[in-house]
Parts: sequence; structure tokens; C-alpha cells
Amino acid sequence: MRRQITGFSNPTVKFLRSLREKKHRKEAGKFLAEGLRLLTDARENGFIPEVLVMAENRDPHPLLEALERDVIAGGGEVIETSDDILTKITGKDNPQAVAGMFSEFNTRLSTIDRASAKIWLVAQALRDPGNLGTMLRTGDAIGAGGLILIDDCADPFSAEAVRASMGAVFTQKVAQAKWDEFLPWLRAGEGQLVAASLRDAVPYRGAPYAAPCFVLVGNESRGLPEEYEAACDLRVTMPMRGRADSLNAAVAAAVLGYEVLAALD
Amino acid sequence: MRRQITGFSNPTVKFLRSLREKKHRKEAGKFLAEGLRLLTDARENGFIPEVLVMAENRDPHPLLEALERDVIAGGGEVIETSDDILTKITGKDNPQAVAGMFSEFNTRLSTIDRASAKIWLVAQALRDPGNLGTMLRTGDAIGAGGLILIDDCADPFSAEAVRASMGAVFTQKVAQAKWDEFLPWLRAGEGQLVAASLRDAVPYRGAPYAAPCFVLVGNESRGLPEEYEAACDLRVTMPMRGRADSLNAAVAAAVLGYEVLAALD
Repeated sequence: MRRQITGFSNPTVKFLRSLREKKHRKEAGKFLAEGLRLLTDARENGFIPEVLVMAENRDPHPLLEALERDVIAGGGEVIETSDDILTKITGKDNPQAVAGMFSEFNTRLSTIDRASAKIWLVAQALRDPGNLGTMLRTGDAIGAGGLILIDDCADPFSAEAVRASMGAVFTQKVAQAKWDEFLPWLRAGEGQLVAASLRDAVPYRGAPYAAPCFVLVGNESRGLPEEYEAACDLRVTMPMRGRADSLNAAVAAAVLGYEVLAALD
Repeated sequence: MRRQITGFSNPTVKFLRSLREKKHRKEAGKFLAEGLRLLTDARENGFIPEVLVMAENRDPHPLLEALERDVIAGGGEVIETSDDILTKITGKDNPQAVAGMFSEFNTRLSTIDRASAKIWLVAQALRDPGNLGTMLRTGDAIGAGGLILIDDCADPFSAEAVRASMGAVFTQKVAQAKWDEFLPWLRAGEGQLVAASLRDAVPYRGAPYAAPCFVLVGNESRGLPEEYEAACDLRVTMPMRGRADSLNAAVAAAVLGYEVLAALD
């Protein structure tokens, strides 16, 4: 279906705008992704938006036309609207000319096939959606299977996480679990749990990594709880030559993730 | 000097608050850093705030008392105020109980002594202050000398950059220069310029790094201009196993920076 929306108080506009808040995303089970590049990545991975919202004054683009056709063919809705209304929906002053609404994915641990990749990233109590999205992006780059979010993390379907993922939210598996659920799941199959740590740790270069390798990083300010570190198969440490005693969480995951990739390649 | 401020319209409150905007920071040549940890890092590196603002209801802390003494001894000002006014100054809903005002540092290239470190990070047109602060933090960790900002970058003295640097803004040198100024400066001495690149590049692992090594990353969306890459001594590439063709800029700098550290160590 195709239609034009010109009114700010239109219920669809209000609904899409409400998805900026986590509470409303969870109620509806929907999220937004912005920009033709992200939506094209989604499409090439088999994810077609249920609703596509486009600026009336957008530049024509063959990829956008292909996307429109797929949305219509899939029974979805294509909406044309003004820049102002797009700004209202996305909350950005200079919105991309197009945004898509998707159903949130099933993020249960049981959806993860650990044998499908040699590396999995795991984050515990990660609070920053930008870090979360960056870890998805890094996971894509190192050929990880996905990102497992332990305990109370930022929402992977927030606009900031989706944006920072640069489309990897559509290519990486995402799972969410409490530690008490994750650890038995991990131990029920093959898998090496590796923590970036300062305690009882070996140098991260040349450490005995083994596939499937689960690379665990902790909360941005507190790091990993001691008992989580103790439950790991391997604790590794990166050089810290300055005054600081830790790296940004997404940076730590990337430096360690690339090392694991080199070791298991 | 010590005083209490109770009014929102107090000129000092207005002045400190104005430092949230780049324009006012540049006019005044001042910036703010928040939190006892950051201010303690600053103090241990010889940077004492000119103005220290504290919440009246803060918890007592020996490090804060030491900081107060140093501020008074240095001729600075210690201000006690309400949580509400601290919120107004920092723009954060849950402000840290203390903030300090510093003079911006001299960021000319000529302040950089390239022989003082084996690694220097260089960013071109880096737009995200969080990425900038994260690069400073990573630079501290890998023992880099500092961060050189090429062309039009985010402001290293913004609250977000200072916060993301986790104190490294006080331990790493920061320089700002146009490319046309940077390249002649670099070539006037020793130094290998290394770009993270996809063009005509060798694998980043085992590449022939040499000190002082200047690790260059480009703008978040456009990457490096082709002529900048061409001017580099070495172009290296990181594996990209997924759909994405690039990493987050701060992640790329960190993965490459740690590789250079391992090579030159």
C-alpha cells in the first residue's frame, strides 16, 4: 500500500515516532532503521521493512526503487511525507531521506548456532548503545557469528545502536540473556570463554585461543564482576602503557577480537 | 578564593555553562572537566583547575580535599553550589559532584616532540567527539605521544571528548593542523606515516612499521582522501570478513595502534 501523510498528528507518524523510546519498542516489538545504505544492507540480508517512510523531495535512486517494490510485494506500506515529519519521526535535525520499520528479532540464546562461527562477542552490562552498535560492526568485520548481551545492556534496537552498527544489526545474530542462563548454555556445548581482564591474566598476544571462542568484555565503568572472570577459561590482558587501567569496551572487544581472528584463521 | 553560589543567574554560573558551546570555549580559551577521577588524573599530571565547582552535599574525599588545597594555593577559585546549579553548568541530569575549569592547551604542531614517543595517532576530519576522546584513551594505553587532528575535526575540549578520553586529554599531547601544514612538518624530520586503507595496501599484521610511527585514520563516513593515502609511507589493511568495508574510526586506530605497539616494542 502507498500513501501520503501530511499531518503531524497522523497516528502512523505518532506510532513511528514512539519507537524512539525503548518502552514503546518493546510494546510494539518494532524498531526503526534510517538511511538507504542501512536499508539496502537489510534488504540484501533478507530483511524488508514493514513500513518504509520517504521524504517527498528525495533524490531518485535505483536501490530505493527496488526497496519500494519489495516492500509493496511483501504486503508492507510505503509512505511519502515531508522533511519536517521525517525529522519528527527520527528526532534528527537532518534526517536521512528514508527510514524503515522492522519487527524486532528473536534474541533468545536458543536461536544461536555456536558452530556457525569461530568467534562470538559477548558483552556484560554494556550501557552505551554506541558501543553496542560498534561491537556489532566489529563482529561483522572479524567474521563473528554475533553478539551476546549479558545482564542489563543497552537496547540493540535503539536508533543509536542500529546506526553505530552500520547495518551489522542485520548480519550479526543478537542474543540477550542473564549470566545464570548464559553460563549453563555455554557449558552445554563446545566453547572457550575469554575475558579481557587484569586479574590472573596472560598476554593477549599468543594466548591459546580455541574455536568457538566467546570474547567477553564488561561494563564500561565497573568492568566484569570477579565471579564472571573466574568462570572464564582464559583471561587475557592488553598492554596498558599509560596512566589508564582500561580501554573503551568496544575498543577492547575489537583489539581482542582481531587477535582471536588471527590466531584461529 | 572560596565562595558559595546560590543563584542560577550568577555570572560565573552563566560563564561556566557557556563553555558547553565550542564558540564560547574558543572565545574564553577555557574548558570543563567533570568528576573527581578526571580531575585527579589532571592534578597528577600537573594540571590544576582555575575554578573548582563542587556540590554542597558531596561526600568528603581526601583526593578532593587535596585538589581544593592545590586550587587555592594556585590562586584559583573554589565554588560550592547546589546540585541544580551543577546540573545547569554541566548539562547532565546526574552531574558528577565536582567539575573543574582549565585553560585550553596550546595545540600547535610545534609543541610536539616527535622523538618523545614511538607512536602517534593522527585523525583526519574526525567528527565524533566520542571517537576523538576514545582515541586519546587508546593512545594513553599504547604509550602513544599524542593525537594530531588534521583538517576540520571535533573539538578535543568538548565535554564529550574530555569524558571519553577518561583523563587522557591531560596525558596525551593534542595538536591541530591542516594537512598542508602537517605534511611538511612530518617530512621535516623522521617519521613513518601509516594509513588504514583499502587501496594498494599490505596486511596490517607483520607490516614493516618504523618509529616514530604516525597512524592515520580518516573521517567516519568518507575515510581518507585519496591524495592523503597516496602521501603515506605505508598503507595497511585489516581483514573485513563481513559485509562492511570499514571499521569505526576509533576501533581502526586501536587495532592498528596495538599492532604497531607489538611491532616496535
